[in-house]
Amino acid sequence: MLDYRRVNKNVDFSSVDIYPKWKGNDADDINVAIETALDYDATRSYKHKPFLLMESAPGAPNWFPYNRLTRAGQHELVSMQSVAHGADSVQYFQFRKCRGGFEKFHGAVVDHEGSENTRIFKEISALGKKLLNLDEVVGTMPDSRVAIIHDWSNKWALDDAAAFYRRDKKLLPTVTQFYKSLWTRGIDTDIIGFEDDFANYSFIIAPMLYTVSEEVGKNLTKFVENGGTLLCTYMTAMVDENDLCHLGGFPGAGLRKVFGIWNEEIDTLYPEQKVLVKTENGECEAIDYCELIHTEGAKVIAEYASEFYAGMPAATVNEYGKGKAYYIAFRDKGEFTEKIMEKILSETKISSKFCSQLPYGVTAHSREDDNAVYVFLQNFTRSEQTLTPTDSWSNIENNEVINKEFVLLPYETKILKKLKV
Amino acid sequence: MLDYRRVNKNVDFSSVDIYPKWKGNDADDINVAIETALDYDATRSYKHKPFLLMESAPGAPNWFPYNRLTRAGQHELVSMQSVAHGADSVQYFQFRKCRGGFEKFHGAVVDHEGSENTRIFKEISALGKKLLNLDEVVGTMPDSRVAIIHDWSNKWALDDAAAFYRRDKKLLPTVTQFYKSLWTRGIDTDIIGFEDDFANYSFIIAPMLYTVSEEVGKNLTKFVENGGTLLCTYMTAMVDENDLCHLGGFPGAGLRKVFGIWNEEIDTLYPEQKVLVKTENGECEAIDYCELIHTEGAKVIAEYASEFYAGMPAATVNEYGKGKAYYIAFRDKGEFTEKIMEKILSETKISSKFCSQLPYGVTAHSREDDNAVYVFLQNFTRSEQTLTPTDSWSNIENNEVINKEFVLLPYETKILKKLKV
Amino acid sequence: MLDYRRVNKNVDFSSVDIYPKWKGNDADDINVAIETALDYDATRSYKHKPFLLMESAPGAPNWFPYNRLTRAGQHELVSMQSVAHGADSVQYFQFRKCRGGFEKFHGAVVDHEGSENTRIFKEISALGKKLLNLDEVVGTMPDSRVAIIHDWSNKWALDDAAAFYRRDKKLLPTVTQFYKSLWTRGIDTDIIGFEDDFANYSFIIAPMLYTVSEEVGKNLTKFVENGGTLLCTYMTAMVDENDLCHLGGFPGAGLRKVFGIWNEEIDTLYPEQKVLVKTENGECEAIDYCELIHTEGAKVIAEYASEFYAGMPAATVNEYGKGKAYYIAFRDKGEFTEKIMEKILSETKISSKFCSQLPYGVTAHSREDDNAVYVFLQNFTRSEQTLTPTDSWSNIENNEVINKEFVLLPYETKILKKLKV
Repeated sequence: MLDYRRVNKNVDFSSVDIYPKWKGNDADDINVAIETALDYDATRSYKHKPFLLMESAPGAPNWFPYNRLTRAGQHELVSMQSVAHGADSVQYFQFRKCRGGFEKFHGAVVDHEGSENTRIFKEISALGKKLLNLDEVVGTMPDSRVAIIHDWSNKWALDDAAAFYRRDKKLLPTVTQFYKSLWTRGIDTDIIGFEDDFANYSFIIAPMLYTVSEEVGKNLTKFVENGGTLLCTYMTAMVDENDLCHLGGFPGAGLRKVFGIWNEEIDTLYPEQKVLVKTENGECEAIDYCELIHTEGAKVIAEYASEFYAGMPAATVNEYGKGKAYYIAFRDKGEFTEKIMEKILSETKISSKFCSQLPYGVTAHSREDDNAVYVFLQNFTRSEQTLTPTDSWSNIENNEVINKEFVLLPYETKILKKLKV
Repeated sequence: MLDYRRVNKNVDFSSVDIYPKWKGNDADDINVAIETALDYDATRSYKHKPFLLMESAPGAPNWFPYNRLTRAGQHELVSMQSVAHGADSVQYFQFRKCRGGFEKFHGAVVDHEGSENTRIFKEISALGKKLLNLDEVVGTMPDSRVAIIHDWSNKWALDDAAAFYRRDKKLLPTVTQFYKSLWTRGIDTDIIGFEDDFANYSFIIAPMLYTVSEEVGKNLTKFVENGGTLLCTYMTAMVDENDLCHLGGFPGAGLRKVFGIWNEEIDTLYPEQKVLVKTENGECEAIDYCELIHTEGAKVIAEYASEFYAGMPAATVNEYGKGKAYYIAFRDKGEFTEKIMEKILSETKISSKFCSQLPYGVTAHSREDDNAVYVFLQNFTRSEQTLTPTDSWSNIENNEVINKEFVLLPYETKILKKLKV
Repeated sequence: MLDYRRVNKNVDFSSVDIYPKWKGNDADDINVAIETALDYDATRSYKHKPFLLMESAPGAPNWFPYNRLTRAGQHELVSMQSVAHGADSVQYFQFRKCRGGFEKFHGAVVDHEGSENTRIFKEISALGKKLLNLDEVVGTMPDSRVAIIHDWSNKWALDDAAAFYRRDKKLLPTVTQFYKSLWTRGIDTDIIGFEDDFANYSFIIAPMLYTVSEEVGKNLTKFVENGGTLLCTYMTAMVDENDLCHLGGFPGAGLRKVFGIWNEEIDTLYPEQKVLVKTENGECEAIDYCELIHTEGAKVIAEYASEFYAGMPAATVNEYGKGKAYYIAFRDKGEFTEKIMEKILSETKISSKFCSQLPYGVTAHSREDDNAVYVFLQNFTRSEQTLTPTDSWSNIENNEVINKEFVLLPYETKILKKLKV
């Protein structure tokens, strides 16, 4: 596997191949949409420039375990999703189905049948017409105030760590859990690495940031000192860039003082085990990992309520410099993550460009330049969804004014525009 | 793996080794009996001549994951089953248990104990006496009016296809599902390949006949033209004998006009997903595969009732020449297969030689020559079963006349004879 | 894998590394404690001398699939357990956590943090103080009247046997099931091999003793002749030391006459199958294996009550010489084993040195020399447990007299002493 951030230093533009594994029910497919969005945001963040959707499948791919057909309407939805997140192209693998070989049944613009009468060919033609309206979007970019640190070197070190739950530390699902709180709110997000400039953001989330060099530690410290909000979790700063453990107590690389805690031990739970956690908003359950941390200045915002470490802190916040450092010592099933994200987004005044509240399964991502903001409203459910804008927009397709409650059809994408004053 | 049809061109007689994996309950063991019957019918059909049962295990084999004992009476049942389907011998591996090595615990006529006092030895002796009565059966053959096409080249191409449910297309279970409708009715069946003469049969079933060369396409077309009934399913005639996709719309090789349909796309379902299908006899459920077909002359006999293709045809029949071509576009759980088989067998007037209705788990297979018909009635259940002949027969063991209701004991085989007039 | 009995002939002392896989609930963890005890007893029995606990993990190991923290108190419990079973040392891997490499997160006396302020360091210091009181125990040994034969050559031959349930015959769980009846009663036990002197014991248990040479057969025969009680199970004496089957009927090597039975066949059940067994104490269920045995002088103490072998013997006892030979022809889920062990231990008057009845999860193992007996009472549950001695003892830590009911705290070890008169 390559470190795509390093690769992108040497190429002119980023591109990505996307084959979402749709399942056929809203609950699963919304999660698929979120994972796909995360991929698009990561691709755009490599060069902080628009990217190309290089490959996508018209119809079903051939290499999945189960090669389910793309549902009517789903193809436009996912193609437009790439544009919503910064793509300046929608391209396919493949144009015409080959007669032989491994990919002979991979979706294509033109089928073995050979005519323009197939469902797939008609859907692609219709999408092509809509893309012709989007010339003015080319080159625009989202303006993200939030970033998630997800660096390849951290992933590799975690994968290699012989400890905890050895087979799979579940870094990507954990990153995705935090990202989900942002996606469901329509908040534009960058996915960054250790060498990005943290000063560009108000709020940085760094889940399972196991690998932290002294330099990265200093940069994160400065970010908080200067007023940023940093959210880290269990397994923070255990090893340095050479995979050597930090001495003197975790989190290392100077972050012990930033978070105001000492992580003495980490308990790994069996999959069937839960530990109770008491929070301001009632009880929740810890799974997989519970760190036994001691406060050294931090304020406790959640504590364990079962096991031999009942009463010890489970989550803390520390004021440091002009900023704040949140530490979540356990893995939760999603409820606590959602609550703490809500709290921090409110504190940092970060929200969607479009409206305050989105129905579940609908998102609103934006791109902008000096003249205008474009917001892509997308309905990833199979039901109609009602939206209410907080401002006045115009529909890019027909210049219709959108300033009050309206309906988004199943799998519909609406692209709205607002001029900057 | 070898193409046994090619091998059999170069040998004097066919033989087979059979080790049925009995489970210990009627429901499973009837399925085991059906799979075993299919193997016997395939073996006989390679050369269209009686074959030898070369190896079978007295007692338990040693190489199964779980090496369960053959139950009292079960040994005679399965040995006689081979004769019922065309075997002219019942032979064993092994005569005497070896003291050492991998097969030292494989069932044998003579145990390590060494005497004639074991259950197994006694059962084999008793069977041997019964086989002495069957000299007149040697050389006789079933007279099959039904055939199932199950060609190795089709299996290999399907296994190799990177598409649909990639790991396992489940060809053999699908073939077995159709075969089961024949077995439970006591209908003698041949299992044939692409090079067999289709003109020998009134009804040909070709499940998942993915591979169809232009030549085989022509032969199937001629079979229907001349009055035959052909039943095919989803995935028919997608590739030719070189594993290259047919162009111009599936089914290829000229079969699009024979079935009067065009198969535009195939949807692969996840294991937990079902699609409703509306038939003349009420609703049933599609699993695994649903083709999106368009009629081009065929009559619709079932249609989808859920998913984005609700209302599209799910099964069709087309009158072509003097014959009929049935197409089942989806995989069903068994109900629909059973209904359509009943309908076609009634239309083609194909039935058991012995009686119109058999209890579930009992079958009646026959062998004949110019002088007489022999029917093997076998009870694969652990309960007594009552049978009623439609004609007068004599019991080959004692010449008793059998012309009214009688009982078949658990695991019993009765061999009846009727002279041709 | 090595035959540790052979290795131990050439070394000065035995040692063992123990990493119990605690699960976090009493039911599972008592079983872990029993497996650990069996390992300790086996290690001591190699040389029939005290051994060294060479490696144990302070805190969590790193190489388990799930590396759960050792609970507070659990560390002392398991360290003292080694001493209870004959260890003359408690040692660790590792003293200080390494900064890099595969074992950087393996538990250590000194953490990466580096100070004496960790929970683990404090627990080890406390244990170290208690071990200073145990000088007089060094060199003492349990006085076992029971032995279990568990020889490597038998295990290897069974693993290699292509028969029965091929993948796993479950020898170790079967040995452990018998051992559990001894552990829960606080009965000191040796784990011996074919070359040990059987005359040292009153009662020998030999589960699944598949491999029996003529010489071992003679020694077992002599053991029973001279008044010993021998308990064997299904699969006894099927092969000799060269993995060749005994001829003339199982059990071979002369044991057919000792047990007074002939084992004609063995039925292997599927995991979901059960066979009913009728015993003096009501019905129980056979799983996995049912041998079809015939008595040749033995008295039947249980018989099959389902399957085609209903009515055949399922367990027998035979008086032979001055002793008795028990044969259990089936695998049971634990109930029958427990009942028959109770019966035999009562017949042979073998009991704990400390008291007649122990709460479940508490055990009492002993070491002694010419002067004194030391009994280690250990509570492997997370609840307080009440014990009542049948005699007067003194607490080795403070010389307190213990002669009436007292409480053992969760995870507590108490070491009591009694002078020999």
